[in-house]
Amino acid sequence: MTAELIDGKAVAARVRQEVADGVAELVAQDGQAPGLATVLVGEDPASEVYVRNKRRACVAAGMVDLHRRLPGDASQQQIDEEIGRLAEDPGVSGILLQLPLPGHLDPDALIDRIPAGKDVDGLTAGNAGLLAQGRDGLRPCTPSGVARLLDEYAVPLAGAKVVVVGRSVLVGRPMAQLLLARDATVTLCHSRTKDLAAEAREAEVLVVAAGVPGLIGRESVRPGATVIDVGIHRTENGLRGDVRFAETRGVAGLLTPVPGGVGPMTIAMLLANTLQAARWQQNRTNELRSSQCSG
Amino acid sequence: MTAELIDGKAVAARVRQEVADGVAELVAQDGQAPGLATVLVGEDPASEVYVRNKRRACVAAGMVDLHRRLPGDASQQQIDEEIGRLAEDPGVSGILLQLPLPGHLDPDALIDRIPAGKDVDGLTAGNAGLLAQGRDGLRPCTPSGVARLLDEYAVPLAGAKVVVVGRSVLVGRPMAQLLLARDATVTLCHSRTKDLAAEAREAEVLVVAAGVPGLIGRESVRPGATVIDVGIHRTENGLRGDVRFAETRGVAGLLTPVPGGVGPMTIAMLLANTLQAARWQQNRTNELRSSQCSG
Repeated sequence: MTAELIDGKAVAARVRQEVADGVAELVAQDGQAPGLATVLVGEDPASEVYVRNKRRACVAAGMVDLHRRLPGDASQQQIDEEIGRLAEDPGVSGILLQLPLPGHLDPDALIDRIPAGKDVDGLTAGNAGLLAQGRDGLRPCTPSGVARLLDEYAVPLAGAKVVVVGRSVLVGRPMAQLLLARDATVTLCHSRTKDLAAEAREAEVLVVAAGVPGLIGRESVRPGATVIDVGIHRTENGLRGDVRFAETRGVAGLLTPVPGGVGPMTIAMLLANTLQAARWQQNRTNELRSSQCSG
Repeated sequence: MTAELIDGKAVAARVRQEVADGVAELVAQDGQAPGLATVLVGEDPASEVYVRNKRRACVAAGMVDLHRRLPGDASQQQIDEEIGRLAEDPGVSGILLQLPLPGHLDPDALIDRIPAGKDVDGLTAGNAGLLAQGRDGLRPCTPSGVARLLDEYAVPLAGAKVVVVGRSVLVGRPMAQLLLARDATVTLCHSRTKDLAAEAREAEVLVVAAGVPGLIGRESVRPGATVIDVGIHRTENGLRGDVRFAETRGVAGLLTPVPGGVGPMTIAMLLANTLQAARWQQNRTNELRSSQCSG
């Protein structure tokens, strides 16, 4: 058996086109394009690249690029005030605080300063709670990208046995919640799990977000399973994931490559979240207007 | 094999004594006892009983009973304003909005009006998010009561295979999070799970909160497992749980009876949360005072 590969680039391109269409519609309706405020503190070279890519994608989708840059020695209060201004600004649909922050700053407090409705990374406690309670909200981009890939490839999730490996706040935990919302029976595994291979082998759908290169191979995969690799590591032999690709391809039914699998979905879902945030803000503005007119 | 029984009454009494001691200490320190505001809307007879029991327990622990009663036809705005007043009142440590509310009200919006630091039921999106992200916060009372029972009986949880049956916002979902925080490998099962008995039989610790009388019996229990029954149903033969007690007792290693297992823990943990909330508020007040003096 050779697994079919999931084409993350193609799905991401489709999502980005959908977003561009949605932006055009929004502009036609009320003349204003969604605005994405990327906040970068300091000069971490990797963060510079990520933020540049996000800004380009935002412009390519017809949105307004509202970049804010602060020096690496900016104080907690300075960043807090900057986020406060963006929170108040009606031209700002989404706020993204690029992580990691310099070590002297408290990231949780700054993230929670972003209003839930503009938290396009889905990282505030408020949005995490809405997800945990099964209520509407903005979802973290990488796990919602995985969910979209599973939807696009019509992978059955209701009642399916799903195992998520890794319990990070950015990926593993929200991933488990998103799969639960699709009625999967979800097991969350992590570094303390006793027999990871045995747990993983039970999975009809296996999502690996452990951050450990090559952690998962054929011994951990049920024949025919769908395997999603969220890991991405720079190695001497190029980019590699948490899954040993070649051997797993001989066991799985459906598999994401690295690169070209989950990776392209993250920015696509960030754009989708920004459009969603802009639509909600538009609805609230319209409700407010109509209540003022009738009142 | 006959399972040892978990004595929820004894553990709850211990928690209540600890809380009473903590309250006495707080009063000795700053002269003010924690205050619990129970908000009851309408005249549902079951809710009346629950609220009365909470108020009595609160007084028995040395706390101030700050009950608020609103008529069954109170508007969303009236209750919103009442909660707003309690939120501002420094004498109020905890706010509990008794559920269910009359059908014309939006419970989520009213619950989210409670500041996270006074949300002693742990039901706001903010506290659900803090729990989901593994950060400090107030936890829902029933699942934290279960966690306390497991701690008291020294049930090993790190690396253990734990199955939670039921995904309610009040119990199943936060229960899974609390067990994850204790490093268990957690599977969350629900009505859409394909083979519940097979899943449950894998569990070293099985927590049943499905709300279905007698759902779980010996076919679903691994020999020697710890089984926690959160269900409580009034039947012709008295109170019954989600677990068929007599037959499960012959398989499990440790088991909660119904009544007298999880039940008594809920109010005990509500008191513990109210004390916790009061301590946090005291810390914040002291920090504020010291920063004003030094500034």
